[in-house]
Amino acid sequence: MRNIRLTLAYDGTDYVGWQKQPNGRSVQSTVESAVAQLTGEPAKLIAAGRTDAGVHALGQVANFRTNASLSCDNIRTGLQHFVPADISIRAVEDVPLDFHATYSAKQKRYRYVIHNSAITHPFLRMYAWRLTGELDAGAMHAAGGVLVGRHDFRSFESHFPNKATSVRTVSELTVRRSHIWPLAGIGQPQALPPPSSDQGEFVVLDIVADGFLYNMVRAIVGTLIKVGRGQWTAADVGRILEQQDRAGAGETAPAHGLYLVCVDYDEE
Amino acid sequence: MRNIRLTLAYDGTDYVGWQKQPNGRSVQSTVESAVAQLTGEPAKLIAAGRTDAGVHALGQVANFRTNASLSCDNIRTGLQHFVPADISIRAVEDVPLDFHATYSAKQKRYRYVIHNSAITHPFLRMYAWRLTGELDAGAMHAAGGVLVGRHDFRSFESHFPNKATSVRTVSELTVRRSHIWPLAGIGQPQALPPPSSDQGEFVVLDIVADGFLYNMVRAIVGTLIKVGRGQWTAADVGRILEQQDRAGAGETAPAHGLYLVCVDYDEE
Repeated sequence: MRNIRLTLAYDGTDYVGWQKQPNGRSVQSTVESAVAQLTGEPAKLIAAGRTDAGVHALGQVANFRTNASLSCDNIRTGLQHFVPADISIRAVEDVPLDFHATYSAKQKRYRYVIHNSAITHPFLRMYAWRLTGELDAGAMHAAGGVLVGRHDFRSFESHFPNKATSVRTVSELTVRRSHIWPLAGIGQPQALPPPSSDQGEFVVLDIVADGFLYNMVRAIVGTLIKVGRGQWTAADVGRILEQQDRAGAGETAPAHGLYLVCVDYDEE
Repeated sequence: MRNIRLTLAYDGTDYVGWQKQPNGRSVQSTVESAVAQLTGEPAKLIAAGRTDAGVHALGQVANFRTNASLSCDNIRTGLQHFVPADISIRAVEDVPLDFHATYSAKQKRYRYVIHNSAITHPFLRMYAWRLTGELDAGAMHAAGGVLVGRHDFRSFESHFPNKATSVRTVSELTVRRSHIWPLAGIGQPQALPPPSSDQGEFVVLDIVADGFLYNMVRAIVGTLIKVGRGQWTAADVGRILEQQDRAGAGETAPAHGLYLVCVDYDEE
């Protein structure tokens, strides 16, 4: 028995999300079906993050067990053959049997891309949230700093309570402008070029945490947008965090600007 | 009577090309229909370059005549309202009545994007031609230099003869690698960041000429690919150019890697 780890990128536009659903095409069921076609065995995939409908991934990690004797390289090209072009099998590795894509994950990195422009962009309509009007990325960055650290994030959790705890540790949260399309360097998602600080039509939020609550990044984006608009201040964000009430925070930003960039495990 | 100049970007994926066709959705008919809805007058659009099915544009230029008294800004937002999201109305200007988007054009710039990677990229499947294997961008650049200047380009023209002359002047032809997605900076297509010379998973061909023959850029790309593969040399490209025989050149590269970047007019 082997335990195989996959690194996946996908365009979430045409999926109901990672997780298998009774109705609709999920990334999980699509890749599981490819594994079954390739290995002849039924497959069950475990993922690091269950991305929502429309959310994209640059470096999702999943694992499955198999008795197949194929090389990792043949698994990669074989699976790529059986999945549609909006899923990319980026890497395949043998990992120890106790590796679990969800529970072994130490940190995950998400990126949210806002296209801050009065002019529409035909190539970005499914890949960034377009917002017109002034957006003060510096103020958003400063207010985002309030959320860094170990906090109860239930103010930014949809459908609370649905977890044993809403406490998470955010180790990084930055908001910067970029004049270059911030998904460059997909091959090395760790090495994304740093967005420049104050110029450019993209506003890019990067967040790293040991775990994320349901819709947490999108609720944080919806909240920081109000700071960028001048309606709220960093102090308001601190107050929202303390009040532990989802109704006090901003709206949930749309799914199509969100990317699961990468997942960190101990052995790396 | 006014003459209105439009600057358009579009995702060519779902169009039969710029030009109106008996069957199928063209960019021309889509924008003409938006103009008619906005102004209440039938409209006839003239474009700088009749991009083919699947070819994209960052800075296509078109003009039409109208009696409408709307401001340019209202024309822009009004047309954007009536076109689908895969077309962007980037700019609207009043121009002299003798401005003709096709005949007044002095130069056009096209870009062809190759994604040179063994790994598929889910976000680029409709926006770059993916090629696996070694590709020597430096050799392609050197061989491309053979084509710069005033030449009869019928070796790179589909369906010759279909023009009075196949002589064109190519004023620039570069091939470079880039590690960043080479469509960044769409808002200022003139100010695209220069691709770096020898690193990165993208191979980007830029070409500027006073006019282009049918499928010319794509035939040049298909020819230079053979140089990048080591099958042909710069001397072979020179020989192909001299022989004036389309059968001697490389295959026509696919449409979805090609972008009409911008059009230069005298007054600029």
